[in-house]
Amino acid sequence: MLLSGGLDSTTTLYIARDKGFRIHALSFLYGQQHFSELESAALTAGDAGIENHIRVQLDPGLFKGSALTGSEPVPENRTLKEMAGEIPPTYVPARNTVFLAMALAYAEVIGSHDIFIGVNALDYSGYPDCRPEYIGAFQKLADLATRDAVEGKPTRIHAPLLHMTKAEIIREGLKLGVDYSKTHSCYNPDSSGRACGRCDACRLRLKGFRENGMEDPASYSFRGYQG
Amino acid sequence: MLLSGGLDSTTTLYIARDKGFRIHALSFLYGQQHFSELESAALTAGDAGIENHIRVQLDPGLFKGSALTGSEPVPENRTLKEMAGEIPPTYVPARNTVFLAMALAYAEVIGSHDIFIGVNALDYSGYPDCRPEYIGAFQKLADLATRDAVEGKPTRIHAPLLHMTKAEIIREGLKLGVDYSKTHSCYNPDSSGRACGRCDACRLRLKGFRENGMEDPASYSFRGYQG
Repeated sequence: MLLSGGLDSTTTLYIARDKGFRIHALSFLYGQQHFSELESAALTAGDAGIENHIRVQLDPGLFKGSALTGSEPVPENRTLKEMAGEIPPTYVPARNTVFLAMALAYAEVIGSHDIFIGVNALDYSGYPDCRPEYIGAFQKLADLATRDAVEGKPTRIHAPLLHMTKAEIIREGLKLGVDYSKTHSCYNPDSSGRACGRCDACRLRLKGFRENGMEDPASYSFRGYQG
Repeated sequence: MLLSGGLDSTTTLYIARDKGFRIHALSFLYGQQHFSELESAALTAGDAGIENHIRVQLDPGLFKGSALTGSEPVPENRTLKEMAGEIPPTYVPARNTVFLAMALAYAEVIGSHDIFIGVNALDYSGYPDCRPEYIGAFQKLADLATRDAVEGKPTRIHAPLLHMTKAEIIREGLKLGVDYSKTHSCYNPDSSGRACGRCDACRLRLKGFRENGMEDPASYSFRGYQG
């Protein structure tokens, strides 16, 4: 599975584990401006007792041009409507395509036929590579791409959060025992790793907890709520 | 474009250049057992005067289990019929999917909308990720995956060799000025970089030159011809 250490991928890990899968997780260094998420991924991997957690270093030169890789500022205080309007500057070129491709390679190496990814299209569909039609196209590619697929053992791409709201994801994760204080979603944390409360990721997450009548247990320097 | 330094990708480079494209080439280190191909890629990139040649280091752990990454011996002295029978042990898990995914990311970063890949399905269709249906599926994925695609500037995957025989590829390359003495196709070269003449790649290549009434100008320790 792809494990960033954020709310979505951590919940996905617990869903996969609940279905009885033994977990091999990949986290990627691709030039992102902070490592809070990766630290969270390591915590989660430890807590959940997974089989294997691999950090993969990618050439940052291939992923330039995103607010997440330092090319421009992370947008703040946007409403849901503003978020839905366009592809945000936090889009990273072809990121999920690269991550899924590497997961496909690694799955075949270790003899797995299931890849889990925590993409989510409902609350926020700004990223082209988080949409159901994108996941469907990757599945079709995977069905043609590998020796295992050709030999009748295709690899299934699981995206269990695809059609869930953030509030539903959180509810599901809490049922499965996720400790959300150890997850990190913020695009722009401060130097001590506290979430900014202003970026799209923070605002969607804070809203999801509020809709469940709770406070987000993660550490914030500010908590910006949707109007 | 993807440039391995072999006969196919080098010819593809010259075809792309002939069509007027300025070339940015990616070569990958993925745990392969020799660097003769990469040295050839560097020579070709220099000769052809391309814009940019990037060597991308990938985590070798993700691509284990192939004869090219040292897991088992490279098969020798196989006939065309034996080659066509099954996916060969030189298959590398999801290799072209990973390479194309990274090219898709890099293309978007540099503002390119054309990716060239030297896959070839006609002479030898043993690799699942060299087939026309595979390239078609990657094109469909690319059309959904990126900001550029969503904004009406899709990236086109060019595979100009897809339906050519090795002999036709060589003929086309010679017309365009490729110096095949500087290309490397062998899966198992000796310590001085000379091709083995026995692996599938050597045998197909030697046959292609012979069908053009020529000797392959590359350096061999042995020349094994198809019966």
